Amino acid sequence: MQLPPAPDRSFASDNAAGAHPDVMAAVIEANVGHALAYGADRWTTECTQRFRDLFHGGETLLVFNGTGGNITGLMSMLRPVDAVVCASGSHINADEAGSAEQILGVKLIDLPTDDGKLCPEQVRELEWMFGNEHHVQPAVVSITQSTELGTVYTADEVAALAETSHAMGMRLHLDGARIANATDVLGSSAAALRSFTVDAGVDVLTFGGTKNGMLGGEAVVFLDPVLAARAPYLRKTVTQLPSKMRFVAAQFIALLDNDLWLRTARQADTMAVELFEAVAGVPGLDVDRPAVNSLFPTLPRRVATVLQEWSFFWDWDVARSQYRWMTAWDTTSADVERFAAGVAAAAAADQTERN
Amino acid sequence: MQLPPAPDRSFASDNAAGAHPDVMAAVIEANVGHALAYGADRWTTECTQRFRDLFHGGETLLVFNGTGGNITGLMSMLRPVDAVVCASGSHINADEAGSAEQILGVKLIDLPTDDGKLCPEQVRELEWMFGNEHHVQPAVVSITQSTELGTVYTADEVAALAETSHAMGMRLHLDGARIANATDVLGSSAAALRSFTVDAGVDVLTFGGTKNGMLGGEAVVFLDPVLAARAPYLRKTVTQLPSKMRFVAAQFIALLDNDLWLRTARQADTMAVELFEAVAGVPGLDVDRPAVNSLFPTLPRRVATVLQEWSFFWDWDVARSQYRWMTAWDTTSADVERFAAGVAAAAAADQTERN
Amino acid sequence: MQLPPAPDRSFASDNAAGAHPDVMAAVIEANVGHALAYGADRWTTECTQRFRDLFHGGETLLVFNGTGGNITGLMSMLRPVDAVVCASGSHINADEAGSAEQILGVKLIDLPTDDGKLCPEQVRELEWMFGNEHHVQPAVVSITQSTELGTVYTADEVAALAETSHAMGMRLHLDGARIANATDVLGSSAAALRSFTVDAGVDVLTFGGTKNGMLGGEAVVFLDPVLAARAPYLRKTVTQLPSKMRFVAAQFIALLDNDLWLRTARQADTMAVELFEAVAGVPGLDVDRPAVNSLFPTLPRRVATVLQEWSFFWDWDVARSQYRWMTAWDTTSADVERFAAGVAAAAAADQTERN
Amino acid sequence: MQLPPAPDRSFASDNAAGAHPDVMAAVIEANVGHALAYGADRWTTECTQRFRDLFHGGETLLVFNGTGGNITGLMSMLRPVDAVVCASGSHINADEAGSAEQILGVKLIDLPTDDGKLCPEQVRELEWMFGNEHHVQPAVVSITQSTELGTVYTADEVAALAETSHAMGMRLHLDGARIANATDVLGSSAAALRSFTVDAGVDVLTFGGTKNGMLGGEAVVFLDPVLAARAPYLRKTVTQLPSKMRFVAAQFIALLDNDLWLRTARQADTMAVELFEAVAGVPGLDVDRPAVNSLFPTLPRRVATVLQEWSFFWDWDVARSQYRWMTAWDTTSADVERFAAGVAAAAAADQTERN
Repeated sequence: MQLPPAPDRSFASDNAAGAHPDVMAAVIEANVGHALAYGADRWTTECTQRFRDLFHGGETLLVFNGTGGNITGLMSMLRPVDAVVCASGSHINADEAGSAEQILGVKLIDLPTDDGKLCPEQVRELEWMFGNEHHVQPAVVSITQSTELGTVYTADEVAALAETSHAMGMRLHLDGARIANATDVLGSSAAALRSFTVDAGVDVLTFGGTKNGMLGGEAVVFLDPVLAARAPYLRKTVTQLPSKMRFVAAQFIALLDNDLWLRTARQADTMAVELFEAVAGVPGLDVDRPAVNSLFPTLPRRVATVLQEWSFFWDWDVARSQYRWMTAWDTTSADVERFAAGVAAAAAADQTERN
Repeated sequence: MQLPPAPDRSFASDNAAGAHPDVMAAVIEANVGHALAYGADRWTTECTQRFRDLFHGGETLLVFNGTGGNITGLMSMLRPVDAVVCASGSHINADEAGSAEQILGVKLIDLPTDDGKLCPEQVRELEWMFGNEHHVQPAVVSITQSTELGTVYTADEVAALAETSHAMGMRLHLDGARIANATDVLGSSAAALRSFTVDAGVDVLTFGGTKNGMLGGEAVVFLDPVLAARAPYLRKTVTQLPSKMRFVAAQFIALLDNDLWLRTARQADTMAVELFEAVAGVPGLDVDRPAVNSLFPTLPRRVATVLQEWSFFWDWDVARSQYRWMTAWDTTSADVERFAAGVAAAAAADQTERN
Repeated sequence: MQLPPAPDRSFASDNAAGAHPDVMAAVIEANVGHALAYGADRWTTECTQRFRDLFHGGETLLVFNGTGGNITGLMSMLRPVDAVVCASGSHINADEAGSAEQILGVKLIDLPTDDGKLCPEQVRELEWMFGNEHHVQPAVVSITQSTELGTVYTADEVAALAETSHAMGMRLHLDGARIANATDVLGSSAAALRSFTVDAGVDVLTFGGTKNGMLGGEAVVFLDPVLAARAPYLRKTVTQLPSKMRFVAAQFIALLDNDLWLRTARQADTMAVELFEAVAGVPGLDVDRPAVNSLFPTLPRRVATVLQEWSFFWDWDVARSQYRWMTAWDTTSADVERFAAGVAAAAAADQTERN
Repeated sequence: MQLPPAPDRSFASDNAAGAHPDVMAAVIEANVGHALAYGADRWTTECTQRFRDLFHGGETLLVFNGTGGNITGLMSMLRPVDAVVCASGSHINADEAGSAEQILGVKLIDLPTDDGKLCPEQVRELEWMFGNEHHVQPAVVSITQSTELGTVYTADEVAALAETSHAMGMRLHLDGARIANATDVLGSSAAALRSFTVDAGVDVLTFGGTKNGMLGGEAVVFLDPVLAARAPYLRKTVTQLPSKMRFVAAQFIALLDNDLWLRTARQADTMAVELFEAVAGVPGLDVDRPAVNSLFPTLPRRVATVLQEWSFFWDWDVARSQYRWMTAWDTTSADVERFAAGVAAAAAADQTERN
């Protein structure tokens, strides 16, 4: 089969993209002279202040990656016998290779969802577990924003979960590996970010950097300062204390400067919509309009295989012949056009072949 | 007290230094286009081949930091009830905030040493523990090269420990956060590196990058490939799987190119000797000739306090009024001269004051 | 409401019963003079030989309770990153307060079932997880026999699960807290026991004593002797090594003598059927014929509340107004008659009241 | 060599003894009818009230064994990163096969002692660790009373440790596997018990039953009720929740009745002194006067080997040819006479042989 030229950037994942030029420039600028390790440097001081400004408070710790950020954050809220309530498809449950169980010794109570989003009713149904020594005690509700399925909680939805959780004596954790993408579609401003985090009652969150234009690095934001008190120890114990922390801090400073984090997220989200519109009519392909930067199309296995060899992307649900296409901060309209053209060509060739 | 100008670079730690220009250039070069995450990129492929060439075999996994590398490496050799034998002052015992216990659930049998080095006799004395269900079962001996006290095991010493460990059914782990510094003083070549690692019988080691001119990153080398089989899973579980791994790999490629890793270590080690010679005669100061890049002087508390405010360095043993001075890959002779001049001036002023 | 006299023994649980007189006599007999602790006594030697005879091989360790037995047995089959596949309602998942996660650091992959029984198809669907470092690696399938819902796997069903598990490189664990009740209904003989355990390919099982007429004590049987090698260490580490072990061993010897374990189980199972028949026609009550010693009736909440105050039993599923009635080794036909009479009277009174 | 008849009861350990007749009678009496499991029975209610009376407060949980009691008690006082300070030879460090590390993920900071007893100075020296994220944070001091070396803390010594620990923000844990023996020598009354526990500031302790005349069972006493709140969950999670708890409770009630616990301990302690006096002059034997129920004699290896075959006892320190002789609640003067006669005969024969 003859396919048009592949796009310069694949639609495999947002973590296949490199670092934004401004982020790279910040790292280069920070690479001058000596600075004390483990965060006793001026970049980390400035970075944590920036986060305080962004969230109107809280304390922030920088870590290496998303799994490490989730573990550090959850650890600050857990005692033995406590359990974490989460969606079955959540990253902490499905994609962290048992980190929570191995490192924290915690049970995850994973609940089914259609769209990756938990709802207060599901949490309330766990009420019966409290006070019974034969069962773990739910202590934290963990949500992902945007979710692993590319959906988004509204600020009201988060607030309802926080209210329910708090009323039951639980905490609310938000895995924000793609928090910028969610912010983009919920108002695209710092105020929008606060509306579904600090204003909604989230206790601890991660603020993703890696997928949004950094070389690597995530922030754990303790909106309840009580939880921050012991968090530095926890970060160290779980192996997430960066030695030359200035280089993580400098990247975040660049990302927070002039709303770069929102502009990069916006580009990714916009490209996803462009891709949706470009492939919407392709025969044999079925896909929903994306909320953020991912599409989950179903298409014939034969077509997908041809396309994956041409410009790689991941399987999502093999049984349903469903795939994942994901845009990044550096995806261009030209990439979308080329990719959509390839999809159309592969689908057409398949139709011809079958007739 | 009037002190001369402080050095441009402090003697606080080798992790206070930034990244070597060649390392930074490699990161910039790697920041082009898309590359699949988690190591499915050409930089990681090349990097792991470079390590295979360097060690004449083995399998290498890249991780974020030293603690994470130690945990990943030890985990590959441990079953429940197993214990790790180490020096009391070893990083895994004294400076990792209980990571081994929390993440691996393992007991560390920490043994006293004068100079940070374990000896085969100490290991053999644990023979009585085997086969008794009331006691943990020693399974790994862990050594640090160079040690936390700046000393170095000879290749024969490592080989003797490996032989003893293996004869007792145990494995030998080597924490090589400063393995380049040790290699420098043991022959300064790849052959020298192999002499005290693969040739000596080490099973798993970490190869430090962060302290030797990288932005951040360490390598875990499984010299016994059997241990490597499950190691990728372990790395993920302990939160040490870098997402955009190309940036760690690119740094290591630069470090291994043209023996940069040995040249940077050489500079640090040489500067430590220069510093030793420059302060040797200072009254009230007592210090041994450094083996690698650290000195552990004792000097009057008053003098030290003045100096720490002038150009910061860390306390080592408060009770003995002992401190640590450490050189880095970017320490210059001018830094040494300035620092030594300051030390001399502070000591002289103190002498005067007391008379 | 006027109810007939309550039964002498409640239908709350089989662990509400005391010890069988033969078991008690054995403890009294064993309480003579000194015997070395931790199993170096003649009772333990005899007891483990009895289990070897019963299962035609294997190695047996005595422990305090069911949760401890499950943890010890599972631990012998697990490495880090490994996961255990089990039914959602299994004791290890639902009723052990997170022991597996806390002590073993393991993730439980809990699958939904209608009747408490896993099937090979469910296990095979996990094939996709293997070899992917982002996911835990299924390593053990754990089933309960008889299940928490009072159902029983046939020997063929267990064999099919063992075959599937082994073909996928996994082990099969059987939680036999009520293994005697299952044996009773599957043939009521040592051969029947072997048919669904050692002959079917089970690797490790627990053999329950507490619920079947002992003061307390369970046995962990390692049918694959490879797994037994390190098990004594694991038992100690998880706090399950009885000091004066002769008293656990003596109880098991009594239970295995003259098939007492089958006779006690038979009594419990028979009484459950008697109770089923006695209440079958009660208006407003719905209940299935029991497979072993438990019934799960639904009946009006008002009726249940009255009955629970009269002769206590546990709620099962509050939402469905479902309860659990359980017989024990010492339940008598007189107990059944009285209890059924009470149920009938309460139901009738309720009918009257509502009309 | 011809030796006199061996004693009816060995001097191997106090856990080689069976149960006291009163304890056994209590178990038999409790074995009547049904009682709800897991402590919802009248024996447990009475037993915990008895402990409340004994300690003038506190909350008590019953568990299976000493290791389980220590783990449950320590767990109630620990958060991640916390460490437990203990003597090197303490049971939790040396004889529990890594339970604390495996189950709690905690680091034990084990300190050297001459006599098994920690002192406040050793605890104070750990002050430097606080507030440094690279180190575990000492949170609990754990002592054993009487110690593994048969020594005893005075009430003042415990109070000093409690004061130091509390002043540093730490808790004090007391492993009382042989708390009755210590109480015996410190005044032999409930008041004496309180003097070195609740009055001295201990936060949590275990109260041993197994070694003091029970079939099996220990109590964990939370003198600070705040710590008791979550303890039932912890007990369950660490596999230490007895199902038919009435049988543990009934034993303890018998032990606490009419000071049986003090009378049994008194017998053991007295017999140890008798043994000391009976062997004091034996040539080639060196032994200190016992504080409680154990002697640690050194004697020629040849003599010891002969004696161990005649009436078994354990090696203590092979390098020093040191052994342990231990009396129990049921040791008689006749046992002592026979044993001492054997020791004298073996020693004399050895002297003759060597001349």
